[in-house]
Amino acid sequence: MSLTVVGSVAFDALETPFGKREKILGGAATHFGLSASFFTQVNAVGVVGDDFGDEEWDVFRRHHINTNDIEVVPDGKTFFWRGRYDYDMNTAHTLDTQLNVFETFQPKLSENSKDARLLFLANILPTLQKQVREQMPDAEFVAMDTMNFWISSMKDAVIETIKVCDCIIINDAEARQLTEEPSIYKAARAIMDLGLKAVVIKRGEYGATLFTRDGYFAAPAYPLESVFDPTGAGDTFAGGFMGYLAAHTEINDETLRRAMIYGSVMASFNVEKFGTERVDGLDYPEINERFRTFKQMTHFDDIPFERATAA
Amino acid sequence: MSLTVVGSVAFDALETPFGKREKILGGAATHFGLSASFFTQVNAVGVVGDDFGDEEWDVFRRHHINTNDIEVVPDGKTFFWRGRYDYDMNTAHTLDTQLNVFETFQPKLSENSKDARLLFLANILPTLQKQVREQMPDAEFVAMDTMNFWISSMKDAVIETIKVCDCIIINDAEARQLTEEPSIYKAARAIMDLGLKAVVIKRGEYGATLFTRDGYFAAPAYPLESVFDPTGAGDTFAGGFMGYLAAHTEINDETLRRAMIYGSVMASFNVEKFGTERVDGLDYPEINERFRTFKQMTHFDDIPFERATAA
Repeated sequence: MSLTVVGSVAFDALETPFGKREKILGGAATHFGLSASFFTQVNAVGVVGDDFGDEEWDVFRRHHINTNDIEVVPDGKTFFWRGRYDYDMNTAHTLDTQLNVFETFQPKLSENSKDARLLFLANILPTLQKQVREQMPDAEFVAMDTMNFWISSMKDAVIETIKVCDCIIINDAEARQLTEEPSIYKAARAIMDLGLKAVVIKRGEYGATLFTRDGYFAAPAYPLESVFDPTGAGDTFAGGFMGYLAAHTEINDETLRRAMIYGSVMASFNVEKFGTERVDGLDYPEINERFRTFKQMTHFDDIPFERATAA
Repeated sequence: MSLTVVGSVAFDALETPFGKREKILGGAATHFGLSASFFTQVNAVGVVGDDFGDEEWDVFRRHHINTNDIEVVPDGKTFFWRGRYDYDMNTAHTLDTQLNVFETFQPKLSENSKDARLLFLANILPTLQKQVREQMPDAEFVAMDTMNFWISSMKDAVIETIKVCDCIIINDAEARQLTEEPSIYKAARAIMDLGLKAVVIKRGEYGATLFTRDGYFAAPAYPLESVFDPTGAGDTFAGGFMGYLAAHTEINDETLRRAMIYGSVMASFNVEKFGTERVDGLDYPEINERFRTFKQMTHFDDIPFERATAA
């Protein structure tokens, strides 16, 4: 049932219309791991500097995330990102990026991490993603993320990595950029044709859509009146999605659909507070209550229209 | 069970990346009426010139739409609109607008039209919409559309009209413009507070959302790989929505939700061909098959997560 994630562990400095934080826990593997930890046992693979303190490690410990494969570089500094969001919370403005120890990150997977049934390759160099995937030939379901920077600078490597995965979880702009196809539906099918079983397109405030070989599922976004801090929402979605799948023996259309909703549920919580604050403090009743709300938001009775029923 | 619509009946000249048409039947009342005619008996109120020919009248006749209140102005010319769509099919570029007889349109409702249970005020001068609504004080459910032009030039009149309606069906940009509220959820609630029972926000390729006093429903868009001609999609949506409601004695959360889906179904057909071509030729099996597809696109089993279920 376990799940391994490889990706960044970082410090973020954030500024939104609602406030700011100077140095808080962030990173793709962090947001993914926290979210997934509500559903399954998570192994996190990453690298930090020795400026990574007890307060940060405690967040992982609280959620029983295995951090044995998070390498600590002596005298190294942890990946740092400073970003700002204006009222259009859909776009992050990067003010500063210090890769630090992440610049030379070489993922080292212990046997325990390699034994996981599921693997998530968070957004890192596509060639590194591929190397990690090849260290886990028996993984049952492997999903990946990527970003516009890699698509524009090394698209071939991104495609080679996609070819060894089962699922990709990206946003609509990345799907269009990768395929040069304006229609998100054609784009998703084109990516699927690289050999994937599932393509998940994240559409921000419009929700997320799942494409499988012969299926399509539309998950709405939770109607949040205000997004407090969108940082990590995509990784939190992926964590709920993969975590839910890891908790089930069957990965089929039904579990994939519910995984889409649990991913949406977790992402909707993530944006309610800064960084990891909201997800860190979540409990199961809250999670399932919001899951039920998603059901209510989309449910309608399957009653075909008959002219005769006309009143 | 009947439904009255007041709005434009027009000739359109269209150009899309897929082809062009010089002078085809169009107009809000036309698209709305055709769509609604599959569900209920429709009375259309509008005005045309004597250039409006048998070919056009036949479209209304085929669908048993009562055209007694479509005034024909001798020696008058029918409202004409010329538009172009580029690959971004979301925005229409208006090349020419000739209001002609529509410029002095004074809706005249026969007793038959006034007796309808439901009324749809398509996008016309808001003061005219209000006058029509006041001619039908006993209407059970009145919905309206409007446009950015009226919101910017006479917002007060738009608001006065909203106050005498039960429902508004507008796109997200219009909702934001009307309320100066970036959050579509806050915008919808603000519009609801003017006294509406329901607010429907059309979100183009992202579907449509229904807000009621205490409910929220998200309808996805149909995953069309290519939109052929979006002209009239919004009115076709409204026609399916209002037509479905007119066919049912109860207007409640359940029928409103299915009405949202039937509206989405009809709009998804409308954009597959030029103008009214596709909807004109529709049949019930096609409509209900697509309704079922919408169900499949959004269905998931309401199974809460239990840590114990972890494999």
